Amino acid sequence: MKCKLTIAYEGTAYEGWRSQRPERGVQHVIEQNWQKIFHADPQIISSSRTDSGVHALGLVAHAVLSNKNIPVQKIPAIMNAELPADIRIIAAKKVSDTFHARFDAVSKEYLYQVWNHPVMNPLLRLHAWHVPKKLDFDAMKSAAKLFEGTHDFRAFTAKRNGVLADTQRTLTRCEIKRIGPHLTFRIEGNGFLYKMCRAIVGSIIRVGSGAASEKEIYDAFTTENPQQSRMIAPAHGLVLWKVRY
Amino acid sequence: MKCKLTIAYEGTAYEGWRSQRPERGVQHVIEQNWQKIFHADPQIISSSRTDSGVHALGLVAHAVLSNKNIPVQKIPAIMNAELPADIRIIAAKKVSDTFHARFDAVSKEYLYQVWNHPVMNPLLRLHAWHVPKKLDFDAMKSAAKLFEGTHDFRAFTAKRNGVLADTQRTLTRCEIKRIGPHLTFRIEGNGFLYKMCRAIVGSIIRVGSGAASEKEIYDAFTTENPQQSRMIAPAHGLVLWKVRY
Repeated sequence: MKCKLTIAYEGTAYEGWRSQRPERGVQHVIEQNWQKIFHADPQIISSSRTDSGVHALGLVAHAVLSNKNIPVQKIPAIMNAELPADIRIIAAKKVSDTFHARFDAVSKEYLYQVWNHPVMNPLLRLHAWHVPKKLDFDAMKSAAKLFEGTHDFRAFTAKRNGVLADTQRTLTRCEIKRIGPHLTFRIEGNGFLYKMCRAIVGSIIRVGSGAASEKEIYDAFTTENPQQSRMIAPAHGLVLWKVRY
Repeated sequence: MKCKLTIAYEGTAYEGWRSQRPERGVQHVIEQNWQKIFHADPQIISSSRTDSGVHALGLVAHAVLSNKNIPVQKIPAIMNAELPADIRIIAAKKVSDTFHARFDAVSKEYLYQVWNHPVMNPLLRLHAWHVPKKLDFDAMKSAAKLFEGTHDFRAFTAKRNGVLADTQRTLTRCEIKRIGPHLTFRIEGNGFLYKMCRAIVGSIIRVGSGAASEKEIYDAFTTENPQQSRMIAPAHGLVLWKVRY
């Protein structure tokens, strides 16, 4: 029986969803506990592979539950009793055998937090990027708008294995809210290249701090061989918030 | 020279602002580093003593800076370079010799976070109380309003050393906001008894979960020997947010 899992984790202690050193990846910890409890390989496939240190509140994965005597809705309670406190199965439900967590996803939403004050907020130190410099918020809001729509995002990614395939993506939302020194970026789109969210945030912060103008973003979308993003925001500010199907 | 310090800390690793075991208190860590840096006892007095596990974003303290060659505004950078990452001096400024961080405070504001979902959010596990039961939010908002105004709060405290002196306090705000499963209580008043905030949150949650009615709160304010609060919300959901002078 195929089931759809919604998974949350604090990424601080892990090398991403899946690591070169398997035992340091979140997926491995879930698989290991699943095997211990259900005595079968769940064959987990996820919507996304988050990088080392990135968090998730709504990552989606599909898995195979081979023991038919277990009600799917009990999976969260059963698994969470064994999982470490920084990983949680939020929900589980039965899906059709054709459901695929990666290929069926129509959009993903990420949140990125920044603490913009000379001194870091200790309560956010594991979940927000500390930017001590003064930022021009209006310039950032305006820069963020440039990312919405369909663009070739090749400048806003780090090359993985040197290969860049199709780099066109559509963002339906790239917004920033501010409450005092606390900035929250909300970025939603049909798909994301490797480190794309963090490159976008990094570029907007460059504009906000006066290190670059909006032209840098405009040029990145319109020139044939654009310069790669000069600032990739750190991983620990990013949360994979929601995946829609 | 007397200076006013604004201090933030994540309380997880400490036994409160001041502990029976001095080296486990936040105050001691600050004093120790201060002495190491400035070679003098700062004689720190704080607005509040937070309990074990409680956090702060805007605790205020006064301290004596005996070395007149050090500009007060440099204190945060100098101290933060030595302090552990879970304690930060947010700001420092010169105040008159008559300023007293505890006696001059006119109001304090606390935030309390609750995660109301069957499964805990791992990103909030150190900063929010996990309440898995369904809650009646409208009943809670209505119960919260009962706390505003001037009341005898003797039922909403844990007795410290068995002595209860003057227990009348005035709350100017007791509000709850909800974003999905995330509840934030905001409680502001002219002063707080021992564990009073957490007793208020506990009582409101009792009403929300159907374990009690508003009458329990009403009776606690109006009967001569009221029953002590039956639920003290856990420390790790509480943040001392702001102290006003």
